[in-house]
Amino acid sequence: MTDIAADIAAARPLVRFAKGRARRFRGGHPWAFSNEIEMTPELKALPPGSLVTLVDAGDEKLGVATFNPHSLIAARVLDRDWSRVVDAAFLAERLRRAVDLRGMLFDGPYYRLIHSEADCLPGLVVDRYGDVLSVQVNTAGMERLTPLLLDALAEVLAPRAVVLRNDSPVRGLEGLALEHKVALGDLDGPVELMENGARFLADLTGGQKTGWFYDQRDNRAFVARLAKGRRVLDVYTYAGGFAVQAALAGAASVTAVDRSEHSLALAEGAAKLNNVAVSCVRAEAFAEMARLDAAGERFGLVVVDPPAFVKSRKDLHSGAKGYRKMARLAAPLVEPGGFMLAASCSHHMPVEMFAEEIAHGLAQAGRSGRVLRAAGAAPDHPLHPQLPESAYLKALVLQID
Amino acid sequence: MTDIAADIAAARPLVRFAKGRARRFRGGHPWAFSNEIEMTPELKALPPGSLVTLVDAGDEKLGVATFNPHSLIAARVLDRDWSRVVDAAFLAERLRRAVDLRGMLFDGPYYRLIHSEADCLPGLVVDRYGDVLSVQVNTAGMERLTPLLLDALAEVLAPRAVVLRNDSPVRGLEGLALEHKVALGDLDGPVELMENGARFLADLTGGQKTGWFYDQRDNRAFVARLAKGRRVLDVYTYAGGFAVQAALAGAASVTAVDRSEHSLALAEGAAKLNNVAVSCVRAEAFAEMARLDAAGERFGLVVVDPPAFVKSRKDLHSGAKGYRKMARLAAPLVEPGGFMLAASCSHHMPVEMFAEEIAHGLAQAGRSGRVLRAAGAAPDHPLHPQLPESAYLKALVLQID
Repeated sequence: MTDIAADIAAARPLVRFAKGRARRFRGGHPWAFSNEIEMTPELKALPPGSLVTLVDAGDEKLGVATFNPHSLIAARVLDRDWSRVVDAAFLAERLRRAVDLRGMLFDGPYYRLIHSEADCLPGLVVDRYGDVLSVQVNTAGMERLTPLLLDALAEVLAPRAVVLRNDSPVRGLEGLALEHKVALGDLDGPVELMENGARFLADLTGGQKTGWFYDQRDNRAFVARLAKGRRVLDVYTYAGGFAVQAALAGAASVTAVDRSEHSLALAEGAAKLNNVAVSCVRAEAFAEMARLDAAGERFGLVVVDPPAFVKSRKDLHSGAKGYRKMARLAAPLVEPGGFMLAASCSHHMPVEMFAEEIAHGLAQAGRSGRVLRAAGAAPDHPLHPQLPESAYLKALVLQID
Repeated sequence: MTDIAADIAAARPLVRFAKGRARRFRGGHPWAFSNEIEMTPELKALPPGSLVTLVDAGDEKLGVATFNPHSLIAARVLDRDWSRVVDAAFLAERLRRAVDLRGMLFDGPYYRLIHSEADCLPGLVVDRYGDVLSVQVNTAGMERLTPLLLDALAEVLAPRAVVLRNDSPVRGLEGLALEHKVALGDLDGPVELMENGARFLADLTGGQKTGWFYDQRDNRAFVARLAKGRRVLDVYTYAGGFAVQAALAGAASVTAVDRSEHSLALAEGAAKLNNVAVSCVRAEAFAEMARLDAAGERFGLVVVDPPAFVKSRKDLHSGAKGYRKMARLAAPLVEPGGFMLAASCSHHMPVEMFAEEIAHGLAQAGRSGRVLRAAGAAPDHPLHPQLPESAYLKALVLQID
């Protein structure tokens, strides 16, 4: 057990909604915004991340929440039953529910286990690699609960190691510092995972981007089926996800491009683990696509799944142009009747706008085709029904004439 | 061969874009709107559906299209190469391309073969049931090409029968009469089809709704996996699609509800074909859900996949309320930790609005949960990249706490 002050429901500070401002929250929304509550000097002085009881203007108790007086999202509900005690057992129950759901969806213990609000644990992301867990804590509330969380993870999953990957820039909005450490157990070198029957390596401690992107699981399975007998180009391959699965599905050849040596080492390692041939090329994506086009290279499947081009709302215009250019450069590389998967993981890029930019890029390349699939993240990345804006991943699969 | 006047590219009437109005079309959009072209008495007098050559204001030839002087969508492009002759061979090539694509996507010859603009055959929908084809012609242009189309279908697929299901109300916009007939071969009784390993019956000649809705193929597969060991309720079952696949996947029990005797007969027939038990109940959906709730019945999976509630833009408000009520009635029937699939096939219902109504219905029922899957139609219903509004199907799968 850890020495965090125990939660006593009746002793929690009350956070009161202003008159008439509890409507959204009562309607199922998981947050209270700072302009919806009655801020007081006492509340302002609470340590960020404190547990509070939310009450309406008439003092009816509406739930238990974490509270940050300095954040626009002032409170995030943990339970609508205010009398629930938030302790390691509470967190363990949430974890068990999430494990049960993933058990129904997938064959092995390789998935996103906790996807924040949608799994009733706001501010928390947990990825599971068998007996190794990667944890991201993105709010002050979850930061304060981290000692209990580590106890709960140990109880439910008995992990060999837990890595705290607290290096997301969103932590800044909550006044949290960046850190990246092994919080429990030991870890040396990359861990192995399985996805759609293929083996991969995830490096949870080194490099800039770390871990594995389980969100593309179903999209990788979909295009792998189309890769059989075709030449495949996987731009932005990272750890080889699309490339290796296409090779396993019987692609005629697979070329994987990334500008990072570290990523290509993971992709090469994965190819070796699966006994398939993937030709790795270190290059900048746009330049390499232009070079391949000039050289007359053509592929039956081209995958372009880049890091976020739109990192903040003000980047939207330039980022959107980036996606258009990406499609304009990728489309000429696709042989007639071949396929292209284009993706965006930019939170700030609306799905309709992404589809429009890809369509324009295609037209600028003088090509036409059809969208076979428009999909988001795999179901281990569920959405809270009232936070549709958290659907960050957008993937389009097109056949190109 | 049929006695339609042969297309001679150089002899076609010209339809001219007004100055500066060809931009959208040049950018890849497949239509010319009536306010984008220079209407003349000669064009007005052309028989609806005539083949024309589209030209820009400077008389540059932009493509061959079908033309309807009385429709808001004046011209629909068939090919950007104006010199292509539109004959049975032209249509046969489009059909072959579509067959090839479906062959990569599916195991058997059961799918939507042609999905209009996205398969480069505007105004045409063809569903394939092995050697029986169901054809919908929705534009004057495709109506005039129908004799050639029947020749092309015979050449490419040698069907045992072709049914013309020209009973969609959209035909009215093109000045076409409704008809429903066997245009080629003979057909007596329902035809059989396979989907996700299950056998079903489609009645192409009788009843009001006819045929099979292949669009839910992937959504049926997704929820069938979740049905194992659970009590399943399939409201609006129609021909038993969700019900039978859930039963085959090992549901503890399956109840299928529909208000049509004819639909239930198809569902019962499918259950028999697959040797599974499905209990069929003839009832009105909302009333039956309320009755089941009052009786305390609970299920591990509830499917609500109704006919379109929003049949025209002016129905949007009332239809949206219908979806909300549907979710409010269905959610209480779901046991904690169980699943709900809610769908809308209303063209006029925006996807965000549908998700919002379902979320509100859930909240009104006092329940919460997570969206595991937000999907459209299966990939044999592709989209033209510049007609995103043609994505009519919206399906949400939620786990409900």
